[in-house]
Amino acid sequence: MRAVDLIRKKRDSGEHSREEIEYLVSAYTHDEIPDYQMAAWLMASWIRGLSRAELAALTEAMLHSGEVVDHSYLPVKKVDKHSTGGVGDKTSLILAPIVAAGGLAVPMISGRGLGHTGGTLDKLEAIPGFNTFLSLGDFKRVLRECGMALIGQTAEIAPADKKIYALRDATSTVENIGLICASIMSKKLAEGIDALVLDVKTGSGAFMRKEEDAVALAEVMVDTAKRVGKKCVALITDMGQPLGRFAGHSNELIESIEVLRGGGAADLRDLSLELSAWMFCLGERTKSVEEGRGLAAEMVSNGKALEKLRECVRLQGGNVRVVDDTSLLPGARGCVDVKSAGAGFVQDIHCLELGIALAMIGGGREKKEDRIDFGAGLEFHKRIGDAVQAGEPLVTVRYNADAQVQAAQKMIAESYVISDKKPPARALIRRIIGG
Amino acid sequence: MRAVDLIRKKRDSGEHSREEIEYLVSAYTHDEIPDYQMAAWLMASWIRGLSRAELAALTEAMLHSGEVVDHSYLPVKKVDKHSTGGVGDKTSLILAPIVAAGGLAVPMISGRGLGHTGGTLDKLEAIPGFNTFLSLGDFKRVLRECGMALIGQTAEIAPADKKIYALRDATSTVENIGLICASIMSKKLAEGIDALVLDVKTGSGAFMRKEEDAVALAEVMVDTAKRVGKKCVALITDMGQPLGRFAGHSNELIESIEVLRGGGAADLRDLSLELSAWMFCLGERTKSVEEGRGLAAEMVSNGKALEKLRECVRLQGGNVRVVDDTSLLPGARGCVDVKSAGAGFVQDIHCLELGIALAMIGGGREKKEDRIDFGAGLEFHKRIGDAVQAGEPLVTVRYNADAQVQAAQKMIAESYVISDKKPPARALIRRIIGG
Repeated sequence: MRAVDLIRKKRDSGEHSREEIEYLVSAYTHDEIPDYQMAAWLMASWIRGLSRAELAALTEAMLHSGEVVDHSYLPVKKVDKHSTGGVGDKTSLILAPIVAAGGLAVPMISGRGLGHTGGTLDKLEAIPGFNTFLSLGDFKRVLRECGMALIGQTAEIAPADKKIYALRDATSTVENIGLICASIMSKKLAEGIDALVLDVKTGSGAFMRKEEDAVALAEVMVDTAKRVGKKCVALITDMGQPLGRFAGHSNELIESIEVLRGGGAADLRDLSLELSAWMFCLGERTKSVEEGRGLAAEMVSNGKALEKLRECVRLQGGNVRVVDDTSLLPGARGCVDVKSAGAGFVQDIHCLELGIALAMIGGGREKKEDRIDFGAGLEFHKRIGDAVQAGEPLVTVRYNADAQVQAAQKMIAESYVISDKKPPARALIRRIIGG
Repeated sequence: MRAVDLIRKKRDSGEHSREEIEYLVSAYTHDEIPDYQMAAWLMASWIRGLSRAELAALTEAMLHSGEVVDHSYLPVKKVDKHSTGGVGDKTSLILAPIVAAGGLAVPMISGRGLGHTGGTLDKLEAIPGFNTFLSLGDFKRVLRECGMALIGQTAEIAPADKKIYALRDATSTVENIGLICASIMSKKLAEGIDALVLDVKTGSGAFMRKEEDAVALAEVMVDTAKRVGKKCVALITDMGQPLGRFAGHSNELIESIEVLRGGGAADLRDLSLELSAWMFCLGERTKSVEEGRGLAAEMVSNGKALEKLRECVRLQGGNVRVVDDTSLLPGARGCVDVKSAGAGFVQDIHCLELGIALAMIGGGREKKEDRIDFGAGLEFHKRIGDAVQAGEPLVTVRYNADAQVQAAQKMIAESYVISDKKPPARALIRRIIGG
């Protein structure tokens, strides 16, 4: 088999066999195919597309390019959730303790934030001492002891994805449903899970702004998971405004702990419980999603989920007192309100720009190398549909470095569309794919 | 400007500005853009296409990536011919002496043969001592002294094309009219010519088998030449059967000399004179193509063209006695006839396979590194439409190495389609584009 022939085949809209895909991924990972040939193949695949069968083969080939974690030592089902990302999306910090408390195992390998989105790993690292760089051995030990563990991608997991993603980033072949699917699913399935719940975001703060694109991505991801023998469901959810009241690393930990205490913003609580319910159901802990909802609510109300978070923080080396005293988290020196210029209703929010404004004040990364200011954060006072008076605060900005605060304030102010007419109510959960 | 943004633009079917194309070519040539980014851009361009304006910009950028030869020291117009290649296509060896004898300058930078096609450089090197590796200084000296000079591509000429072509070869982005056009035209225009005659082949032995593809390529090449201020015409000519009676390096030199002596096969003589006539006309040596035909015929009949070939061979270090005694050229040890199995008329010829059979017996290159056996050759006894008896020779194979002779014979035998019905006559010159 020669790479040049496989490139030609995809260029001419041909469909690859499983063996051809396996050769491409394996040879590329072992440096037997040079970057330039893979780049040409990726561009041809981006434009011509990959069939469902090709995607399943690609996902499996990438998955098997490294270690597939073996959790057979665990007597319970292993489940995870993946979100395509957005602003204020902190449900992982809430549902992992709920689902672990409810008796399933959650072996979560997470990513870092980039651009306007935050990453679960970064948020956990706001807890002093919390170690996300566990070896696979320690990952299993923590998982065995408390039913949940949260780490970053290791060199052993899906090395093909790491190499291919870096090349896609440099060759404008990122934004493609098939390639996104294979990248996400290869990493998630390498966790050694039985079932996966997907939270595919849509709206102004999501990568897939249009709902039809989010649905298309969800469909191929669910199909791919099923083709490789895993249970999978995707919830299409709204990212037309921030999830919950807070964004920023310490901020989001605090809000997550509030939800685990039974409080927190309604949208965040609802979505976290709903995702937990699906995890319980797909993990066969409950017979139905409805029953899963009950179990999830119970794990919050009886305090077991919060206790599970304490356990996990302790086992991963973090300062466990943070859970009961969030003032121990990195804070912010300064604080300023962005106020509404006009009166009326919040008609729309440019959610992506809120994420960028947060990154500008240090609460995110513009480049991969950037260091995060965990204390920097935004508090959102108004949601779409809320009435607002002129001069009333829309967002409170908390910061440590002054440099970009003015520019961020301006960007935030311009992100809110205020008008006379109250907009129609928005559904948080739009559709369920594969349920 | 960033390569990743330009790749995205072409991926999304955008049209590049001249500045964008110049940046891509210049930065790639200077190793500021890595191969993998160029590969992605080439694949996007292959699939999405390049506009006429983009092609002109690409050609010029590649042309100016190296030296554009300055022939202002010559008092006459500089003209050249380029053929897209085929089997037995030796017109360069004939028309260059004719046109130089007629008073124009022919600064010809040629290529080598690969696959089923031969290359002018290789054929010249069959002449003992002939040096195709002249410096640009020596190239000009020969040109000034005898009005023609034939060399290979130097490092100074269009280095961008050399680098891009190697990458295209490895990434299945060769067979694209726009990219082919830019590659050919950048090299040809770097010769410092005033006018160019294109011989675009079509039929079973051509790269563009279908006439419509040949016409499309001819149109973009003529358009590109005119956009950069050069006179240009393209003749669409038949490559559905070998040109002339002979293929192979010594063989083709001998046949070319025969034409310059006033003999040779009618099709070869006609096409060579016609291309010469167009060169005379575009080079403003004659007022019309008709007048050009007369001048070309005169240069043959008065012996001046043959004398010009002698001069050139001498100036480039070759054994000039070869011109008058072609037995001094490398010969062949063995000889075998491929005979017709049936009787009837030659209905069709798979011309590509004849070129491959020639390469198999050493008279061409399967890989770039292969050495050519100048003495290996084919003599074609039958043309399409000729009557043939069972057992009558179709082709005489001349060879030095036995290894592949049987396989080549079989391939040749299978290349001739014999049937009862006499096929309709074929026009050698199909269309003229831009004349």
